[in-house]
Formats: sequence, C-alpha cells, structure tokens
Amino acid sequence: MKKFKKYYLSSVIALICTTSLAMQLAHAQKDKTVRFKMQSGYALSLPILGEVSSNLPKHIEALTNKSVRIQYFEPRGLVPNEGIYDAVATGAVDIGYAGLGFFVQKNPALAYFDAVPFGMDSNGLIAWFNQGEGGKLRDEVLAKNNIKGISCGFNAAEAGGWFNKEINSTADLKGLKMRIAGLGGRTYEKLGVSTQSMAGGDIYAALERGVIDAAEYSMPALDQNMGLYEIAKYYYFPGWHQPASIQTLLINKTKWDSLSESQQGAFYAACNQALITSIAVGESIQGEALDFIRSKNVNFRVFTPETLKELNSAWLEVSAELAKDNVEFKKIADSYNIFQKSYGEWRNLSSGKLD
Amino acid sequence: MKKFKKYYLSSVIALICTTSLAMQLAHAQKDKTVRFKMQSGYALSLPILGEVSSNLPKHIEALTNKSVRIQYFEPRGLVPNEGIYDAVATGAVDIGYAGLGFFVQKNPALAYFDAVPFGMDSNGLIAWFNQGEGGKLRDEVLAKNNIKGISCGFNAAEAGGWFNKEINSTADLKGLKMRIAGLGGRTYEKLGVSTQSMAGGDIYAALERGVIDAAEYSMPALDQNMGLYEIAKYYYFPGWHQPASIQTLLINKTKWDSLSESQQGAFYAACNQALITSIAVGESIQGEALDFIRSKNVNFRVFTPETLKELNSAWLEVSAELAKDNVEFKKIADSYNIFQKSYGEWRNLSSGKLD
Repeated sequence: MKKFKKYYLSSVIALICTTSLAMQLAHAQKDKTVRFKMQSGYALSLPILGEVSSNLPKHIEALTNKSVRIQYFEPRGLVPNEGIYDAVATGAVDIGYAGLGFFVQKNPALAYFDAVPFGMDSNGLIAWFNQGEGGKLRDEVLAKNNIKGISCGFNAAEAGGWFNKEINSTADLKGLKMRIAGLGGRTYEKLGVSTQSMAGGDIYAALERGVIDAAEYSMPALDQNMGLYEIAKYYYFPGWHQPASIQTLLINKTKWDSLSESQQGAFYAACNQALITSIAVGESIQGEALDFIRSKNVNFRVFTPETLKELNSAWLEVSAELAKDNVEFKKIADSYNIFQKSYGEWRNLSSGKLD
Repeated sequence: MKKFKKYYLSSVIALICTTSLAMQLAHAQKDKTVRFKMQSGYALSLPILGEVSSNLPKHIEALTNKSVRIQYFEPRGLVPNEGIYDAVATGAVDIGYAGLGFFVQKNPALAYFDAVPFGMDSNGLIAWFNQGEGGKLRDEVLAKNNIKGISCGFNAAEAGGWFNKEINSTADLKGLKMRIAGLGGRTYEKLGVSTQSMAGGDIYAALERGVIDAAEYSMPALDQNMGLYEIAKYYYFPGWHQPASIQTLLINKTKWDSLSESQQGAFYAACNQALITSIAVGESIQGEALDFIRSKNVNFRVFTPETLKELNSAWLEVSAELAKDNVEFKKIADSYNIFQKSYGEWRNLSSGKLD
C-alpha cells in the first residue's frame, strides 16, 4: 500500500479548524455579556426549520454560559423577511436565519449558497462548504455587506409540484400556467411555461379555479397541509428546481467580530447540531406524508429523463445569462459546477449509475 | 393551510434534547477532572476517520475546559482492534472508536448500527438514529455490555470491488473466488462465490497470482492506494455490500455515568462536528480518486439492475437466517427495515425514481 501523502494537507486543515473551535469554547465563562436580537425566516410552527431556528438561541446561550443572550423573533417580528439581509448588514437586526436564496433579488449569486436547479444534495453541499470553496466564497460575498454567515440547517429536497395533467415531455409544459418563482421559474419559462409567484395560501383557490394549471410549494411534509391533493391529480418528482437547500445563520459582522473566540465557537457548535437535527427530521417525516398523499388518490409521477435533460439545458441557459453580466455570479457558479461535476460522478457511481 | 399539529410532539422532543445538551455544557468549569484512555480503530494516517477520531480528544478536552483528559492510542495501541468492544465493556480501555460492524462476531445485530448490505445512506442513518428507533435500540444493546455509544462519524460508501472479468449476471459470479468478508461475503456465497478474508496488504499478490479473481477493499480514495488498478481491469459499483457506514464512539458506561451532564454534552458536541467533518471529507475526496483510477485505464462498471436484485434477495435470505436464531437481530432488523422502506420511497422519489 502506498502512503497517503495527499491527505496530509487536509489533515492539517481539519486539525486547525477543530483545535480552533475547541479553544474558542474553552474560556466561555470569562466573556462579557452581549445581547442580540434574532429574526427567523421560519415560523415556530413550521416543521424542521421552525424547530431548528427557534432552538438556536437557548443552545448558544447555554454554550456561552449566557454571555450571549439572544431575543428571538418570529418571521416579520422586526422587519419583513425579505429585509433580513439588509437589516443584518446595518445592524438593525443582529442575527437572521434564512436560506440565502430569500435574497436573490439583491444578488442572484446568493442562490448558490442555498439551492440552485439541478444542484447538489446535502452531502455535496456540506462537502463544498467545508472542503471546497463554498465557505470561502460565501464569506467573501457576505463580508462586502458586513455579514458573517454560518451553515446552520437543511431543508429537505422539494417535490416537483402538483399538476392537473401528465407531463410526458417538455411539449406538455408549453403554455402551462404555473405557480413557481425564482430560478426554477425562469428555467420553466425557457420552455414556454407562464410562471407566477403567489402566496402559499392563495395556491389552492388559484388551482381550483383554473387560474393556474400547476404549482410547486415545498416538500411532501409541508405540501400535505395545503390540501392540493383535493384538486390536482398528479404529484411530480424530483424537485429538480430545488434539491436540498442549506440554511444560513446571518450575523452582523461588526457584532460577530466583537465576540470572543469562545463565543464564536458556540455559534459553530449550535449550528453543527442544527445541521444534524434538520437532516434527521427532514428525512424522517416525508415517508408518512407520502403515504397520506397517496391515500388521497394522488398519482405519483416522475419527470421523464428526456424532460429532465431539457429542463437542465434550460437551466444552464438561465445560469449563463446571469453569469454574463455578473462577475461574482460567474465565479461562484464556476466553483460550484466544477465541484459538482467531480462529486456528481462519485454520487452517480455510488448509487449504481454510470454517466 | 391546515395546522401543523402532528409536529408539535417532535418540536417538544427536539426542544428537550437541545436544551439538555445546552444545559450540560453550561457548567463545564465546575467539573472534576477525569482521565480516559482512548483507542481508535483507524490509524492517524487514514483519510477521513483517522483525522476525525484523532481530533476528538483535543476537541472534548477544550469543550470541557480540560476537565476530561483523553490519552489517545492508535489501533492496537492497547488491545487488538477486535478486542476494543470487550475492553471498553470491562473498562480496560475507557473509550473506543470504531464501526460497530467490527464486532459482528460477538453479535451480528451490531451490523445494523454500522452498515448492512443494501442499507441506508448517511441521511437515512442520521434520521433512523435521531428520529427513528436506531439510537434507542443501540443504547439497549450496548448497555447490556456496560457500554455507552454515540454516533460519531461516517465512512463514505464503498466501491463494489475489483474484478478481472465483466459481471453481466449472477451466473458470472458463480465459482468466482473473491476477497470479501462479513455480511456482504455471506451474501455472495449464496450465489456461488467462494469468499475469503485476507489482510489488505495481501490482496495485490493474491489477485496477481490468480489466488482470487476479485476483491473489495474500500472506497475509491483508499482503493487507489492499493495499486489494484495494475492487475484488475474492472472496477464495479455500487458498493451494495457496504453503503455509508456510521461510526461509534464507545465509552465504558460506568465511566460515562460518572461524568457531569456538561461533560457528557461535550462528547455529543464533538461527535456532531465529527459527523459533519467526516461527510465533508468523505464526499470531497472520491472524485479525484476516480479520475486517478480512470487514468490507469481501469473500466468503471455498474452491476446490472437484475444482478443487484438477485444480490438483494440473497441478502434477505442471509438476514432471515440470522434473525431465526437471534431475537435481538430480528428486532433491530425489523425496525431498520420498516424505517428504510418509508425513507427509501422518499429517497427514490426525490431522486426521480418511482419504485
């Protein structure tokens, strides 16, 4: 057997990171008390991320022996949710919790730090952020707005959405009116879908009255609460427009820099726990939801390989357009795509698929 | 939208768990100092788990403000690796780090707490241990031997192994001599493969001289160091015999019970970090290894769906045989299988596969 030379570097990096986190936590009790206001983008009642984000304050407080005190606010408790990014940047809100994809209107590049169409699964994202360039690139982008970001949870993959007819090819998509926003929506538009965004609570009525023909909302465990199984016959997979999405704890950077290393370490430890808990909850509640939805005589369908291939091509067009006028987008997209290509081959082979 | 009533219970559970971990860590500095000896089953030089396990002592020490001191030993530093389980049970070694599959000779049921053929991926395992019955069942089994276990890392999926000819059906397996041990080996035997275990360092010579026709060792990043690409033409996927395997920190339970809640919490926090780091490293180093192996003119192959189906049936036979004489094995296998069935449908759909 040959030597493992190439791994020495990553060993050293892992050692530095771990030691640093550990040292940070060792002196918690000497720190002066700081008080933070935190707004979550997810309501307490929401499965997975509502639980995870609302637990962060008490976890961080205890890890810092209460030298960090966090007053928790529900969505819109301090600012509109889409204002969290700017509010954290100025310090009007000290801490926000959201997927960075909430803020793509500000900077479409932020989507890569959350979820993009045909993007990576949770393992791939963990790898890109921790061992690839993801963490470094996110730091760079957020620091320009005086924000520190920490990976702090996952939303499970979304479903592909509810349709009132079968989609056997992209020809069947043409002319369809669909509730879907963001980069997934822009991708559908390339194939002749007429997309629109609307509040979750308005979907049922719009679909029932034929204002729309299709809608995506979220993952099965959330979708089941929308009642769409009463008015849409087909539930499609995969949710190619939003695979596993990673959530970020956003902290005003001036305030972050004022924390001791020990206090900062507590944020990392709490977020590690959030990552594990959100995976555990997110992956365990979908099966029962699928059983429930099936019991309502909904037909489960998967998009054909050809349809997915054409949707993927459409997404690459959208991505290329965005990269043309945005150097930052291009830089991040390139890093993500290179990492995903290498990871993707491994992902496929280890699932028994040759490219 | 309807209410999320059914999630209140899991919210409460998550709250209790998180609060408990947090409270535990809050009073680290009042604890009396305890000294532990730890033996890892993975050498420091080994990618992923060598790094992860060797970092645990300093991480736990710092998290407990050095009230827990851990002297770290490499594999065989105190006892033979296969003796770690018994040594932790008696307290001859305070802490061990291993996959519980190391110890299937003692109790084949332990395989389910590590990896079994056609078992779950890392997300499924996290979910079963944290939200399903996995953690509770492991606690029960280990407690009988006075051991406390904590999920503390992942090994990435293995490859299917090296073959000197193409395997187009299970007929091609018949009569093959293969280096593979454990439950995967027993499964192959059902289909006429003659299996044998041998030390990793002996595989090259055995394959070169025709003593064996095939061999599995590990994942691509480890396999590439074995040089088998020089003497085997085909590298097969998936590693159905060992998907993602979860690693366990084994602690003598008498000593574990003597720790304060704060000290115990530090073990959990360090192991959460180990889970994240091992996923990040494990998923990011395989792509380059695949490139390297391909550059040596090795042919990548995937087992045919029919071959996998027959191997899966053979595994179910093996599993049923083991369950027949072992109530504990049956109980754990049933829990695992029920969870995997529900998770598996979600896993398939979210990857775009209808069952």
